Amino acid sequence: MANEPTQRGRILRAPEHFVDGQLAADITASGLNEERRGFLRRSFLAAGAALAGGQALAQPAGDPNILNLPEHARTLGKPVASNPYGMPSKFETNLLRRESPGLTRVGAASVAFTPLQGLFGIITPSGLHFERHHQGWYDIDPSKHRLMINGMVKTPKVYTMDDLMRMPSVSRMHFIECGANTAMEWGNVAVPTVQYSHGMLSCSEFTGVPLSVLLEECGYDKKNARVILAEGGDGSAMTRTISLDRALDDVIVAWGMNGEMLRPENGYPLRLVVPGVQGVSWVKWLRRIEVGDQPYATKDEAVHYIDAMPDGNFRQYTSIQECKSVITTPSAGQTLLDKGFYNVTGLAWSGRGRIKRVDVSVDGGRNWRTARLESPVLPKCLTRFNIDWVWDGSPAVLQSRAIDETGYVQPKINELRAVRGTKSIYHNNAIQSWQVAQSGEVSNVQVY
Amino acid sequence: MANEPTQRGRILRAPEHFVDGQLAADITASGLNEERRGFLRRSFLAAGAALAGGQALAQPAGDPNILNLPEHARTLGKPVASNPYGMPSKFETNLLRRESPGLTRVGAASVAFTPLQGLFGIITPSGLHFERHHQGWYDIDPSKHRLMINGMVKTPKVYTMDDLMRMPSVSRMHFIECGANTAMEWGNVAVPTVQYSHGMLSCSEFTGVPLSVLLEECGYDKKNARVILAEGGDGSAMTRTISLDRALDDVIVAWGMNGEMLRPENGYPLRLVVPGVQGVSWVKWLRRIEVGDQPYATKDEAVHYIDAMPDGNFRQYTSIQECKSVITTPSAGQTLLDKGFYNVTGLAWSGRGRIKRVDVSVDGGRNWRTARLESPVLPKCLTRFNIDWVWDGSPAVLQSRAIDETGYVQPKINELRAVRGTKSIYHNNAIQSWQVAQSGEVSNVQVY
Repeated sequence: MANEPTQRGRILRAPEHFVDGQLAADITASGLNEERRGFLRRSFLAAGAALAGGQALAQPAGDPNILNLPEHARTLGKPVASNPYGMPSKFETNLLRRESPGLTRVGAASVAFTPLQGLFGIITPSGLHFERHHQGWYDIDPSKHRLMINGMVKTPKVYTMDDLMRMPSVSRMHFIECGANTAMEWGNVAVPTVQYSHGMLSCSEFTGVPLSVLLEECGYDKKNARVILAEGGDGSAMTRTISLDRALDDVIVAWGMNGEMLRPENGYPLRLVVPGVQGVSWVKWLRRIEVGDQPYATKDEAVHYIDAMPDGNFRQYTSIQECKSVITTPSAGQTLLDKGFYNVTGLAWSGRGRIKRVDVSVDGGRNWRTARLESPVLPKCLTRFNIDWVWDGSPAVLQSRAIDETGYVQPKINELRAVRGTKSIYHNNAIQSWQVAQSGEVSNVQVY
Repeated sequence: MANEPTQRGRILRAPEHFVDGQLAADITASGLNEERRGFLRRSFLAAGAALAGGQALAQPAGDPNILNLPEHARTLGKPVASNPYGMPSKFETNLLRRESPGLTRVGAASVAFTPLQGLFGIITPSGLHFERHHQGWYDIDPSKHRLMINGMVKTPKVYTMDDLMRMPSVSRMHFIECGANTAMEWGNVAVPTVQYSHGMLSCSEFTGVPLSVLLEECGYDKKNARVILAEGGDGSAMTRTISLDRALDDVIVAWGMNGEMLRPENGYPLRLVVPGVQGVSWVKWLRRIEVGDQPYATKDEAVHYIDAMPDGNFRQYTSIQECKSVITTPSAGQTLLDKGFYNVTGLAWSGRGRIKRVDVSVDGGRNWRTARLESPVLPKCLTRFNIDWVWDGSPAVLQSRAIDETGYVQPKINELRAVRGTKSIYHNNAIQSWQVAQSGEVSNVQVY
């Protein structure tokens, strides 16, 4: 894990105010100098031609590069639609989702983490959305895909994608977090970067039909039904029980993600969106929903995704992702190369609703200042926070602490361990600590 | 233009409720039948093994395909991170930005349009963001890129990308629309699809440092300064004057778009974000900002991007994109294959602030119903609207009409022409009409 290249923050490089004089000369030469601008003011309509003339005037014969313009300022660039579906710059190819080798025996049942340390805002680019599969991913032909609704309904139905996409749709932004995100921190294992510690977290705008619409259309048993079972089309037979109350509230049968169709790795052409709930319930390649009267206790909710408690029992059906936050820059694996001003930034979220406040400490939790929240602040959605920090060059411990609209305060790791022990895999929402050494190196530490 | 493939809507295909019995059998066989579920309820912890057993039990020897499971339900899929930077499904390859051949003489000074007819929500996938270049696009090395701030400032400065990315940053969602969007409709040319009529429109979450922070740091002349000039690094010497009031308000010097760095086609590594203002002012590959005391009247604001008025004069510095909307599905080029329920959906936006209301007509503007607005409704940002419609099979004319928080109502095309004539290229924000023929074919018509 530690051997892999990590996307280091741009704060790695030293800032250079007033760079080399040549550069400033380049910029000035290629820009509008005082003389040329005066000319422009005198002659609006001839201005286009005047620009070309101005450049020729300043350019002695025989040396076309006298102005030292960078190539992109003196050549014709690439035409439009040369990439009909665009990609990131060639200078950004290190920003990738990455598997943590050895985490599972096969890559088809593994995790690829989102590089939170290199992202901005709240929207996760779909190409960098985290992956967690139980039997690998598929690119399913949407014309052949079907969704069945059966069980305690008056009229069981099978829907094509076309059927679904004609129905009343909603678009909403929500985070999705794997219940096992930050799992390693239960056992005091200092994962080397925020990509691996918190990277099973993404946030998108989802579009689809409210599940309530489909359940109504099929005539669910209003007297006796209590739950639904969502079933995926992959070979792992992923199945999850969801309470009927929740299913009728804000759950979406979604085909859209960040404006386009879901990506294959994220359940194309259909997945369940269960806002505020751990990712495993957002069943991918969704093919069936059954209405029932009691929890199904399938393998993925009886054997897996249960919380080992200190007394030897297991918590089951703990699905809500409680209020949590993490500083993404600066974070472990990055290095501050000099003293001075930094914009400390990170993400906060709660499965219970909106984020109300985020506090940031630079001294391991002794003092806290309130961060700025970027808008929009939406329920069950990531919220981006920013706060100013002037680093004086001495060791520091950075922490963020989120508070949601229910008043719940993100706990310290020792508070969480006191109740839940250290054997859990899931639902670690503790405050994260990043230590800044005098050298500027940032590392993952646990502070109690 | 008409010869190009267009992304037709999914509403093209007929819905099939209760598809073939084989399919329903497939789904049931691969799911949890009543007997198996009973077993699961009796034995939580053995459930994982029981599933495999149940499948073997139902499968006679010698015919591994007796259950007729689709391949993806009985094989191991692809591993995580097999695409470290993910891409859309192979079934979505027709959804692309497209150039309109012949619109300009060279592709480096042309337009590639966003396929609005196939998109959901408000976020435009960065790979489908529209393109408008004046001299082509470049992939500029961010370590070599600089931003100079000069002119009427106390301390002119040159910033590296590292300098900028350490500064206080904000993240905000805004639309960007080319001033020439919907230009062809001035002259009564019925462009064949919404991609070509309205596709110079995109919306992203942008991240960067407020320009006000930089102007303050350089000590702009608070007494005499009135405008700034923004200059791009491309060979077209793109320059635009922006009022100082606006520059100090919500303008951002941005590096982030939808969570990651800007795409090269959209100005990587740095562009100006000028919320509510036409796209040409969102200068790409931004390299210089000069503070001045009067408009610069450069070629791109004196010769280009001016509005031809009926009296022979030209409107200049008309930069705000007024309130506008368009139905994206159903839209021209799509076909309704049968009567019945449709979700009519579209986009509304205003350069003056938030959208307050969107009305939809299916009879060419005689009767209007108010559409549902999806949240969030943000200032100077796209707003997605949805409304139910049961098509009775007779000809219809679909229109949307947006109203913003200032009370401004999107005008009809004849109202706009009465004031502005028909020679304009820019700033056509008229109500768009889509005609649905009895055959179900949807086409672009003008209704007065």
